[in-house]
Amino acid sequence: MSTVALVEESDATAEVAAIYADIRATFGMPFVPAMFKAIAHHPAYLKASWERVKVVMGPGLIDRKTKEMIAVAVSAANGCDYCVQAHTTALKGMGSKDAEIVELMAVVDLFSGFNKMLEGLQVMPDIGTTSRN
Amino acid sequence: MSTVALVEESDATAEVAAIYADIRATFGMPFVPAMFKAIAHHPAYLKASWERVKVVMGPGLIDRKTKEMIAVAVSAANGCDYCVQAHTTALKGMGSKDAEIVELMAVVDLFSGFNKMLEGLQVMPDIGTTSRN
Amino acid sequence: MSTVALVEESDATAEVAAIYADIRATFGMPFVPAMFKAIAHHPAYLKASWERVKVVMGPGLIDRKTKEMIAVAVSAANGCDYCVQAHTTALKGMGSKDAEIVELMAVVDLFSGFNKMLEGLQVMPDIGTTSRN
Amino acid sequence: MSTVALVEESDATAEVAAIYADIRATFGMPFVPAMFKAIAHHPAYLKASWERVKVVMGPGLIDRKTKEMIAVAVSAANGCDYCVQAHTTALKGMGSKDAEIVELMAVVDLFSGFNKMLEGLQVMPDIGTTSRN
Amino acid sequence: MSTVALVEESDATAEVAAIYADIRATFGMPFVPAMFKAIAHHPAYLKASWERVKVVMGPGLIDRKTKEMIAVAVSAANGCDYCVQAHTTALKGMGSKDAEIVELMAVVDLFSGFNKMLEGLQVMPDIGTTSRN
Amino acid sequence: MSTVALVEESDATAEVAAIYADIRATFGMPFVPAMFKAIAHHPAYLKASWERVKVVMGPGLIDRKTKEMIAVAVSAANGCDYCVQAHTTALKGMGSKDAEIVELMAVVDLFSGFNKMLEGLQVMPDIGTTSRN
Repeated sequence: MSTVALVEESDATAEVAAIYADIRATFGMPFVPAMFKAIAHHPAYLKASWERVKVVMGPGLIDRKTKEMIAVAVSAANGCDYCVQAHTTALKGMGSKDAEIVELMAVVDLFSGFNKMLEGLQVMPDIGTTSRN
Repeated sequence: MSTVALVEESDATAEVAAIYADIRATFGMPFVPAMFKAIAHHPAYLKASWERVKVVMGPGLIDRKTKEMIAVAVSAANGCDYCVQAHTTALKGMGSKDAEIVELMAVVDLFSGFNKMLEGLQVMPDIGTTSRN
Repeated sequence: MSTVALVEESDATAEVAAIYADIRATFGMPFVPAMFKAIAHHPAYLKASWERVKVVMGPGLIDRKTKEMIAVAVSAANGCDYCVQAHTTALKGMGSKDAEIVELMAVVDLFSGFNKMLEGLQVMPDIGTTSRN
Repeated sequence: MSTVALVEESDATAEVAAIYADIRATFGMPFVPAMFKAIAHHPAYLKASWERVKVVMGPGLIDRKTKEMIAVAVSAANGCDYCVQAHTTALKGMGSKDAEIVELMAVVDLFSGFNKMLEGLQVMPDIGTTSRN
Repeated sequence: MSTVALVEESDATAEVAAIYADIRATFGMPFVPAMFKAIAHHPAYLKASWERVKVVMGPGLIDRKTKEMIAVAVSAANGCDYCVQAHTTALKGMGSKDAEIVELMAVVDLFSGFNKMLEGLQVMPDIGTTSRN
Repeated sequence: MSTVALVEESDATAEVAAIYADIRATFGMPFVPAMFKAIAHHPAYLKASWERVKVVMGPGLIDRKTKEMIAVAVSAANGCDYCVQAHTTALKGMGSKDAEIVELMAVVDLFSGFNKMLEGLQVMPDIGTTSRN
């Protein structure tokens, strides 16, 4: 159970309620995710975080579905059940089937394994590789 | 410096040399990455790992460039300089400019922060979200 | 469920029982935390760990409440539910309200995100910054 | 070396230059940290991140020095040299001596060890502890 | 709950069924672990991963029980309940009692703590130590 | 460079000097590792940590070489260059050759990859497996 109370929409101040309304409008879902309700005890942080979500996940050089895949991959690497669940749901809403989700996790598996093995052998970056930067 | 000697191409057994040749052919580069030279002391592991690289990074439902982005994102989350350098180089070879690489890292930043904050507040996954799985 | 049996107070040897008594006295609580009951299968490790807890969490240059905040922050970064729960409870016992706990997690969020982004961009420490050490 | 070019002050657009000026004014230092120069390729992300830094590290329920300690502790747990260096320098600027920095790391050591051991033994949170939340 | 459906033996293609049969034969257990059923949506990845399991966990310079201990230790450090449970069960099947499992976790605790503390103090490797490599 | 000064043997108090002497005697090496010199600013923490090293790494149910392997594996998973270097050196002093070190890292690679993939797919532990605990 969350260590802090969730600030429900009925209890939100006008400032927080306005952010909640923007979250619902942007996500197109009938509820505000618990993550935002948990951090609403610090309205300025909630606001600055939500503004950043819109900037980072909004239109740019990388398309939205790829960003959702990266969200799931990073959350798997960092070990966050909440984010893995939420963004896998988002991917499914964009049409991803089980085979695609497993293919994504195959990449996470491959590099997570190599990452730790390379640390354990202290292998230095390739000169030929880095000089191409 | 690597804690084990790198098995140079000139010192490789025929079995290892054949894998090295396949790596060079597949990567289209004039050298074998140090990672493979380091693990060549255990030829069966080198071979099984290389076969898996080809399966995981080869054609599928997710395109190669997206897989390289995931490789960089996961390696950043896991803290592996070698893989970050190698796969950022690969991304640049596929046309990524600095702005795209920073946009990728913005996603890594956003979710790595949320991942740890959610753990710290012990927020449970949304019922509404998970029920859509 | 724990992969090892918990050594209950009624089953403890005299050596372990004496440590349990010291834990209860120091923590001022009517029970011994499960963590200590789990490691009591290795009494010398239990004893050395408990002695270290007293040294590290005891009086020094940093006050106890700040140490509890660091305990929660580190446990969030490392992904340990048990320690997050236990030390958030301790913080609440020292008067922390939900707003303070969220403010603490805002710091964890900010730096966990930057930590991984900086790894992903391989940014070197500032000369101006490090030269002040 | 950074995988992206740093956007130097002399090359910054007016939008980025204004953020750089605010950073210098807020930190009271004669240079802009490399982290911000690296992410300036994505001005909206730079701006949203800097705004969030000011909110999270600004006045609140937790004092600034404690927040710097948490920044160092979290960066140690996540393995980020850049942030460890930068925020240890900040702590020293606020008067911390070597003994205090080691005392801080003793807390990081204690809980990082317990965090992983508890995961390895799958110990469940204490009922008595959690029921006090 | 798993974010993808498990591919049960009754639904498996001939290719996947053959791998399942090999897994059951090798592990000597009456069921196929859920991990393999989850990744069977990507048969080539399942096959390449299973082949690698046999190579890495098979006979070599390090005995099987030590490899199982390393599996538990690494899974504790990386925070994976599934692998901790599965490989602790394997260790118990090889005769490990609670005292041995706690002794293993004592090593994980000791070094996980030191790992993060050393990162936080930025201590460089000893010249005398590294020169012996 | 370390963020704190190392307390050299010539500058140590009698209390610290006695611990240094015990470290040299126990490790059988002509110098005190930098890790201990860094934390000597907090003598009680140095002492409690060193006592715990002796208990955890001393004789027990698991032999010393296996403990050194676990130290390297855990340090690779946690990303600590210092500990990887120091304990790989220790392993080499006990006769480990490059092939054995790579075999050790193959196990770290295998499970680190599976650990993160399982988190990303949220696979639950096998009932058949856990019921054998």
